Amino acid sequence: MSLVQTLHFSKDANASEIMAHPDSFRLRYFQIFTLGQTCRDMLAFAGAKWEDTYPSDWMAEKTTTPFECLPILYIRKDNKELMISECTPIEHYLARQLGFLGKNQYEETLIMSFHSSSSSLLSTFGNFVVWNQPEVRDKCYNYFKQSLLTRWITNHEMHLVDNGSNGHYITLADIKTANVIEIFICQPDGNELAIQFQNSPALWKVYETVTKHPLLADWRSCESFKKLEQNTKLCYKDPRAYVRRPRVVAN
Amino acid sequence: MSLVQTLHFSKDANASEIMAHPDSFRLRYFQIFTLGQTCRDMLAFAGAKWEDTYPSDWMAEKTTTPFECLPILYIRKDNKELMISECTPIEHYLARQLGFLGKNQYEETLIMSFHSSSSSLLSTFGNFVVWNQPEVRDKCYNYFKQSLLTRWITNHEMHLVDNGSNGHYITLADIKTANVIEIFICQPDGNELAIQFQNSPALWKVYETVTKHPLLADWRSCESFKKLEQNTKLCYKDPRAYVRRPRVVAN
Repeated sequence: MSLVQTLHFSKDANASEIMAHPDSFRLRYFQIFTLGQTCRDMLAFAGAKWEDTYPSDWMAEKTTTPFECLPILYIRKDNKELMISECTPIEHYLARQLGFLGKNQYEETLIMSFHSSSSSLLSTFGNFVVWNQPEVRDKCYNYFKQSLLTRWITNHEMHLVDNGSNGHYITLADIKTANVIEIFICQPDGNELAIQFQNSPALWKVYETVTKHPLLADWRSCESFKKLEQNTKLCYKDPRAYVRRPRVVAN
Repeated sequence: MSLVQTLHFSKDANASEIMAHPDSFRLRYFQIFTLGQTCRDMLAFAGAKWEDTYPSDWMAEKTTTPFECLPILYIRKDNKELMISECTPIEHYLARQLGFLGKNQYEETLIMSFHSSSSSLLSTFGNFVVWNQPEVRDKCYNYFKQSLLTRWITNHEMHLVDNGSNGHYITLADIKTANVIEIFICQPDGNELAIQFQNSPALWKVYETVTKHPLLADWRSCESFKKLEQNTKLCYKDPRAYVRRPRVVAN
């Protein structure tokens, strides 16, 4: 297999051809939910041929990635492997490729708007709470729960009611929203947050529609998923744990 | 004109048709750079028919928007006006519509990757520095400058050198990157940051290529742009100022 360098983006003139007709995918992300789970769910749901891989020594690997961060997606076709980087473009590509992006431009834009709102909530949680200075983390978490999270729940509930409270159809937006809820349930006070989500029945229905879909429920029952969930639960207490500790490469 | 409700998304069956063949645009955002400037630059560069509008009383207007936040873009065609929400989907739509999204799927994905890296830097700055608890803001700003900003500069410089240090061609990624640099130059220590950017000549060339392009230089010389710049400079000291103070609607 002709491997592209990971640090630099490919200049292969056939890159778009590889993207349009891939044989298989290889995701590289840490062994937690956070920015990897929506790709994993789409790949699992679509029945794609894919591998879930984790860095064994992130500090050594970090400077070999385009922006010193993960996720990265490797797209394989014949004897070639193309690398793309950054969570939202990867999710947008997979959603388009695997059929989670709606039927027309307006639907795509609506899906990406909901996706953006849910992704932003998660990145605000990361920057303002999880990775904040230790002396203000709990204060920020309380503010986040009372203000930003509550507002997000109210707004999404309203739009889902507008859409007939039907648990939506499975799109990138639904999977991202379900993943974000799943991540919050892994946090301290996760049980209380779960009740808050359940009190918005249209929102909770999206969560249940995604996570109880037979293909995604099946993937949620496997050991590798449970390990991701377990690691995600440890993140609040020690956000650097999954970076600092060398871990076994899964694939 | 048949105005759609702003709070709820439209169910107009012709929404995609309006998006594909717009007559004009109306942007709604605060009177600062932050999440409005990339749209403004694309619209100015493309010579589109557009209006730049600001809320006069944001606290009253807030709950009439889909996610209680701005920007929102109104897309006008004939007697109809369609609303779309969230910064990245709006920028992606305008980039596609106005020709800033590359020639093929791989170029689009690369452009959106650079865009994502630059947007994330800005949102991290917002959540981790500007909107953080007062007692840790300066400490966080120092960490941000030494670590995250420096890493972003190094990585982008490398990719721009890969691309021939040509100041790139004008795409969504270039405009977003130039805007992010422009915003950092408005911060405390902005002069020092400017020198840091200048020391990465391929990156600085992108900034100069965008901001000195005749169409964008022209827009930068007008009074309304200068007011945006002035307000952006006040944000670090008092991030809530542009929300709290009622302001005159520009259009």
